[in-house]
Amino acid sequence: MVQFTDVKNVVDLVAEIGIDEVFVGLAQYIEDDFRRWLDFEKVPRIASHSGAGVIELMPASDGEHYGFKYVNGHPSNTSEGLQTVTAFGVLSDVRTGYPLFLSEMTITTALRTAATSALAARYLARSDSRVMAIIGLGAQSEFQALAFRALLGIQSLQVYDIDPAAEAKFLANLSGLGFTIVACRSAAEAVLGADIITTITADKLKATILSDNMIGAGVHINGVGGDCPGKTELQRDILLRADVFVEYTPQTRIEGEIQQMPADFPVTELWQVMTGQVDGRRSADQITLFDSVGFATEDFSALRYLRDHVQGTRHYSELNLLAEPQDPRNLFGVLRRPVVAPMLMGAA
Amino acid sequence: MVQFTDVKNVVDLVAEIGIDEVFVGLAQYIEDDFRRWLDFEKVPRIASHSGAGVIELMPASDGEHYGFKYVNGHPSNTSEGLQTVTAFGVLSDVRTGYPLFLSEMTITTALRTAATSALAARYLARSDSRVMAIIGLGAQSEFQALAFRALLGIQSLQVYDIDPAAEAKFLANLSGLGFTIVACRSAAEAVLGADIITTITADKLKATILSDNMIGAGVHINGVGGDCPGKTELQRDILLRADVFVEYTPQTRIEGEIQQMPADFPVTELWQVMTGQVDGRRSADQITLFDSVGFATEDFSALRYLRDHVQGTRHYSELNLLAEPQDPRNLFGVLRRPVVAPMLMGAA
Repeated sequence: MVQFTDVKNVVDLVAEIGIDEVFVGLAQYIEDDFRRWLDFEKVPRIASHSGAGVIELMPASDGEHYGFKYVNGHPSNTSEGLQTVTAFGVLSDVRTGYPLFLSEMTITTALRTAATSALAARYLARSDSRVMAIIGLGAQSEFQALAFRALLGIQSLQVYDIDPAAEAKFLANLSGLGFTIVACRSAAEAVLGADIITTITADKLKATILSDNMIGAGVHINGVGGDCPGKTELQRDILLRADVFVEYTPQTRIEGEIQQMPADFPVTELWQVMTGQVDGRRSADQITLFDSVGFATEDFSALRYLRDHVQGTRHYSELNLLAEPQDPRNLFGVLRRPVVAPMLMGAA
Repeated sequence: MVQFTDVKNVVDLVAEIGIDEVFVGLAQYIEDDFRRWLDFEKVPRIASHSGAGVIELMPASDGEHYGFKYVNGHPSNTSEGLQTVTAFGVLSDVRTGYPLFLSEMTITTALRTAATSALAARYLARSDSRVMAIIGLGAQSEFQALAFRALLGIQSLQVYDIDPAAEAKFLANLSGLGFTIVACRSAAEAVLGADIITTITADKLKATILSDNMIGAGVHINGVGGDCPGKTELQRDILLRADVFVEYTPQTRIEGEIQQMPADFPVTELWQVMTGQVDGRRSADQITLFDSVGFATEDFSALRYLRDHVQGTRHYSELNLLAEPQDPRNLFGVLRRPVVAPMLMGAA
């Protein structure tokens, strides 16, 4: 049998553990896997593009476990009441090839994306960062706010969305949780005085959410929304002034903000910073940019986290995907009684 | 919600429809999709190899639906009582990116592989074929026998396996079903006088199950077991005498019998035969070889077949993978009550 966690299981698990502790724990799993980066078999995700959006498969393996995520990105879905992103994933045993654990990842992707952003910021933002700007108050925004509070203690937010309804939703969701939130009338107003700037808009086109004149010295930019070919959020000039950090270079060159730059534009991979091979932030003036697109190892880490944490709880069920005949070469035996018996009787 | 069929659902569905009709119906779906080959977005499967075996993802899309299969191949699994192959798959809506249907494909892969073999033989074997040899009596063997009877009326089998236990299992499983089965002491004996030769051995290495002197004029070879790099079953000389038919050339050159041949070795794709662009069998003397490795469109077809046939039945359940918040930009709202409420109370 394959263990299975659905949306309700994941929500209940998060409620039981507490969302702050989930972000801290999840970030730890993600960091542990980044630190053993060279153990992983890695490929850019396999994307199927259509006019409406993209469907992607994101596999990764550390030689012991194999994981993959199915995820879609359909920006126009919201216009008909559907989500931009849904996902699910599977963790398997490399030795037998058997799937072990299948999980919803619609919620889990939102959790792991925010955990990765906050984890990167812990290495790249100034350690005295207090104020975060959030541009784009869609489905990912509250997760970012809570992850940055859990990992960096950020409580002061300056936020902006072109849609007042998105702003109202964000404010309602985070009300009573101890944040100080300033709702702003423009992105320029939101970034004024911010130590960290998070951009998470959803349009599938080249946009300029941040222009160069908005970015002061010492800022860390957490660029989350630019995540597929043709979709960017930052003006090119910002990239020339910033030190750019990425997850997996071959994928980010296709999907990230750096798709605007030549193929040899210098970037540093996060794992190099986490293992101490390369410095992250070197000075208080430096502009750092985490060009986040989301990588398969983060989903692998999230699946590991979920699987480890549901053991011994009631937050999973089991799926019969494997047939598991008593004699493995007798797969047909699984069919014989129900399928063949009527044929025999018919013949008799 | 995502519709879900597990192993029991598929077995019950096959029992209800009848396995002969399932093979005929499944072959029809597979043929329909081969006939509109140019509508599909196709890629060779994405394989993750380890010392123990391979885990593969097999996506395909016709622009309306997107499907993929997860499948493993671990020949040494049988030594510890586990299956060589397990699988599951998903069919999605390209317009929204939402998964619609998730199914076990451990049984379903066995069904679709046999249906594809029989379908190819209907175009490539002599129409007066009466006797089929089967070399290798593992998990796939009974499915092949039943599919060839359902589609071509083959009732006379000459079979061989190096393992007497596999032979005994095969004979027991097909007993009472009206086949005439001759159990042979060698592959050479089994192929003697056969019109169709099916090879489905499981070793992960270059083997010579059939040598050139065993192959007479007019035979159709259904080569199923050679299906990953380094795994072949036929002596090279046979390929030089035969006309070779494949599913998707770029994948078969990596995985099929033709991996023994130069990259420009001539092959014909099945869809070209099915659409009448290229002749299949041209004469009674010709040796035809279906170099089967299994392609993603066949799984796509199988998922379509299952999904269509479980509608209105009790042979599926539903999985909560999608969260489906009322306001799609308010994914966090799904967490708010269970996760945030305790934090608010704690703060009060």
